[in-house]
Amino acid sequence: MAAEIRVGVLGSAGKVGQAIVDAVEAAEDLTYTVGVDKGDSLDAFVESDTAVVVDFTHPSAVMGNLEFLIGNGIHAVVGTTGFTDERLAQVRAWLADSPGTGVLIAPNFAIGAVLTMRFAAQAARFFDSVEVIELHHPHKADAPSGTAYRTAALIAAARADAGVGPSPDATTDELDGARGAVVDGVHVHAVRLAGLVAHQEVLLGTAGETLTIRHDSMDRTSFAPGVLLGAREIGGRPGLTVGLEELMDL
Amino acid sequence: MAAEIRVGVLGSAGKVGQAIVDAVEAAEDLTYTVGVDKGDSLDAFVESDTAVVVDFTHPSAVMGNLEFLIGNGIHAVVGTTGFTDERLAQVRAWLADSPGTGVLIAPNFAIGAVLTMRFAAQAARFFDSVEVIELHHPHKADAPSGTAYRTAALIAAARADAGVGPSPDATTDELDGARGAVVDGVHVHAVRLAGLVAHQEVLLGTAGETLTIRHDSMDRTSFAPGVLLGAREIGGRPGLTVGLEELMDL
Amino acid sequence: MAAEIRVGVLGSAGKVGQAIVDAVEAAEDLTYTVGVDKGDSLDAFVESDTAVVVDFTHPSAVMGNLEFLIGNGIHAVVGTTGFTDERLAQVRAWLADSPGTGVLIAPNFAIGAVLTMRFAAQAARFFDSVEVIELHHPHKADAPSGTAYRTAALIAAARADAGVGPSPDATTDELDGARGAVVDGVHVHAVRLAGLVAHQEVLLGTAGETLTIRHDSMDRTSFAPGVLLGAREIGGRPGLTVGLEELMDL
Amino acid sequence: MAAEIRVGVLGSAGKVGQAIVDAVEAAEDLTYTVGVDKGDSLDAFVESDTAVVVDFTHPSAVMGNLEFLIGNGIHAVVGTTGFTDERLAQVRAWLADSPGTGVLIAPNFAIGAVLTMRFAAQAARFFDSVEVIELHHPHKADAPSGTAYRTAALIAAARADAGVGPSPDATTDELDGARGAVVDGVHVHAVRLAGLVAHQEVLLGTAGETLTIRHDSMDRTSFAPGVLLGAREIGGRPGLTVGLEELMDL
Repeated sequence: MAAEIRVGVLGSAGKVGQAIVDAVEAAEDLTYTVGVDKGDSLDAFVESDTAVVVDFTHPSAVMGNLEFLIGNGIHAVVGTTGFTDERLAQVRAWLADSPGTGVLIAPNFAIGAVLTMRFAAQAARFFDSVEVIELHHPHKADAPSGTAYRTAALIAAARADAGVGPSPDATTDELDGARGAVVDGVHVHAVRLAGLVAHQEVLLGTAGETLTIRHDSMDRTSFAPGVLLGAREIGGRPGLTVGLEELMDL
Repeated sequence: MAAEIRVGVLGSAGKVGQAIVDAVEAAEDLTYTVGVDKGDSLDAFVESDTAVVVDFTHPSAVMGNLEFLIGNGIHAVVGTTGFTDERLAQVRAWLADSPGTGVLIAPNFAIGAVLTMRFAAQAARFFDSVEVIELHHPHKADAPSGTAYRTAALIAAARADAGVGPSPDATTDELDGARGAVVDGVHVHAVRLAGLVAHQEVLLGTAGETLTIRHDSMDRTSFAPGVLLGAREIGGRPGLTVGLEELMDL
Repeated sequence: MAAEIRVGVLGSAGKVGQAIVDAVEAAEDLTYTVGVDKGDSLDAFVESDTAVVVDFTHPSAVMGNLEFLIGNGIHAVVGTTGFTDERLAQVRAWLADSPGTGVLIAPNFAIGAVLTMRFAAQAARFFDSVEVIELHHPHKADAPSGTAYRTAALIAAARADAGVGPSPDATTDELDGARGAVVDGVHVHAVRLAGLVAHQEVLLGTAGETLTIRHDSMDRTSFAPGVLLGAREIGGRPGLTVGLEELMDL
Repeated sequence: MAAEIRVGVLGSAGKVGQAIVDAVEAAEDLTYTVGVDKGDSLDAFVESDTAVVVDFTHPSAVMGNLEFLIGNGIHAVVGTTGFTDERLAQVRAWLADSPGTGVLIAPNFAIGAVLTMRFAAQAARFFDSVEVIELHHPHKADAPSGTAYRTAALIAAARADAGVGPSPDATTDELDGARGAVVDGVHVHAVRLAGLVAHQEVLLGTAGETLTIRHDSMDRTSFAPGVLLGAREIGGRPGLTVGLEELMDL
């Protein structure tokens, strides 16, 4: 294939960072250069001729990291949370001064989760009904999950764009909560079950047929293939890219 | 096999009755004798030497039917609703005077639904967590379904008997309804989707594994195999039997 | 919405034709004009000012029908099978002389089936592994189904285009048939089960996550929404369109 | 509850043994006494007043371990493989001399797997059709899995006992392998997919309805709840017990 891509990792000593290092090292077309942790100098990325840096650190650190990376023409793949509109505008401003550099910021790197949302949004206008079930381990504090919120919002937006009305529902006698939560008009059900990790199912139905799109995430490494995809593609996409799906050529 | 069993049908002109007639006629070991509808005389069952009568008629008619059938030593398989404790006591009293006669009264003749409830109750005490999802067409008025209520109650009773505590749930931040309705401590979620008929899933989970029991009812004929099972077995079970599972030798 | 579209049906007296008539009549934005059956004159479509004709008849009749319809500037939505390359070339030739007319020919009008194939092909290159399970009623003569063959072929083509190798498989000790049939390198499993209608599941997996896309067709009317979609869209798509997905703006 | 049960572990330094030690220590009603590994003396169990020992070691060691444990009146929970009829007879002979001691030998300690087999066998005679799909990670060498073989054999035996004929199948045109492997007349399909661990689905169907029993094993610790169940129950079951289901009071 193409020449190898030199990839560095921020927060390489942490659990997530270490998983990313392992994945980069296992990929034949990527070369792991260096890891930088709290207290280390970011200069190590320049000295090691790193082309792409992966940052899954902390909202308090990420803006400083990005200013340095963009200023040095190093592409970035970012899984850190907390990007407000102001932060995104700031990243765009830095990138304007470094036109060959690319930055990917994504809330979700699990390829299956990203595809589930994409396919659900694409399919939503062809079906009378759509509902979402998300299923997680019982230690989770929020219900529904952030991914389910986003999925429902994307479905609702696609249906609104297409002029599709609400899913039919003749319920008149409901035990409180039975029909789930309602997010932008989409019913969302949250299951909490020992033995599960993180799962989501989108159910779509029309006369005589249903379509189900289900994503099962079995362990914490499910972000790794998406991070590698980002590292491979971001060099060819100067400027700011928000959302892994933008690099997936769907 | 054994000699043929002679089976008659009450309400044979109705939609459900006709489906039962068709099923009896299609069964090699059963012989369809006669159908009796509103205005017809029940004597037709005696004259035709009928051994078992199936009654899926109406609460207003069923007690009169049963008095006649039991009085004539004809076994009955009953899917009519509305059996209060008083009615059951009355049926037992009639049967006491006709010791060779058997009556089966069951709220659900779909074998898959009956097995789902049975297996869910048997499995419930071995898992930390259990939840129920029922899924139906969007014309249904009640949520959760009657079957889901019964399933949750059976699960709760089995767990209480075994001294199993509530399913773990760390949810602190819930959008109203996300975690479903709670029936006897069991979370129950009701999905309404075009294209579906009647479906139920019981999810059980413990460390590292889950067990899922799912029943899909695709059309209205799914009560037929259970009715035939009842017709075959009730002759060998004098007295009152409540619930198809009691005849299934599980 | 837009003005109503006037829709006629070929073979309206048949089972499939009648279902299409019913669906057209139930759609608020479509008007049913006339049905034409064996022995009737096609002129009825012209006389009734029909804009779109739906043809689910027979390979022996469809070419004559299309020549007439195209010659009269009437759009066509065609579910008849048997379109060879020669037949498609002939249709294109007729359309060249009637540049404002549109013809849709599709092997599958179940929107869920079409989307399943599309999404499977789009997702296939992002996962290490992909397999197909199709499940049908036990009266089906062929295994795998035609849809499963096409799905596997589309998956294989997408993976070949992206340079993705075969799904990993360490099986060394196989009971004959356990790993399914192999279609273009994709393992395909065919289940035959009483109570089922027509179902297909595409399973995709990579490290730590899986994506499942499942289509359930519960009855024979599942082609209707796709036919209506075709009738609504074909007027705006002059020339020949092959495959419903081409009208779905995915 | 009852008094605590004192539990020791053979092979406690190994991966499986360590997981068992962790599970015992986490259980409120069990007390971990001592671990014994290669080279250590079994006397440690006697000295520590251990009531139950768990042995997941090796066929070459297990018989010597059992002779010692039974001889000292210590109950045993055994997950080691390789128990031939001769070996079982030997264990029974030792137990005859120690009538208060109980030994559980089981091929599978995943409660969900055991229940799946049990429920599948119980349900099998009520449905026209039954098939098995097992799904595993792609590093597995054998297809179908040992569990799928046992499940199919149990289903076949239950159907034979009940006089149920083969599942209907009209397939006349099959691509080689599409219909799966046939184990005792039951069709078994083996899926191998990256991202999966160990999963099995039993599908049962009759007119208008299907029942699906699915077991998902997400990680290697799924034997732990079954081992704890065995440790809690075996003290009350003198003699040899083969199969975890025998202790589950189903």
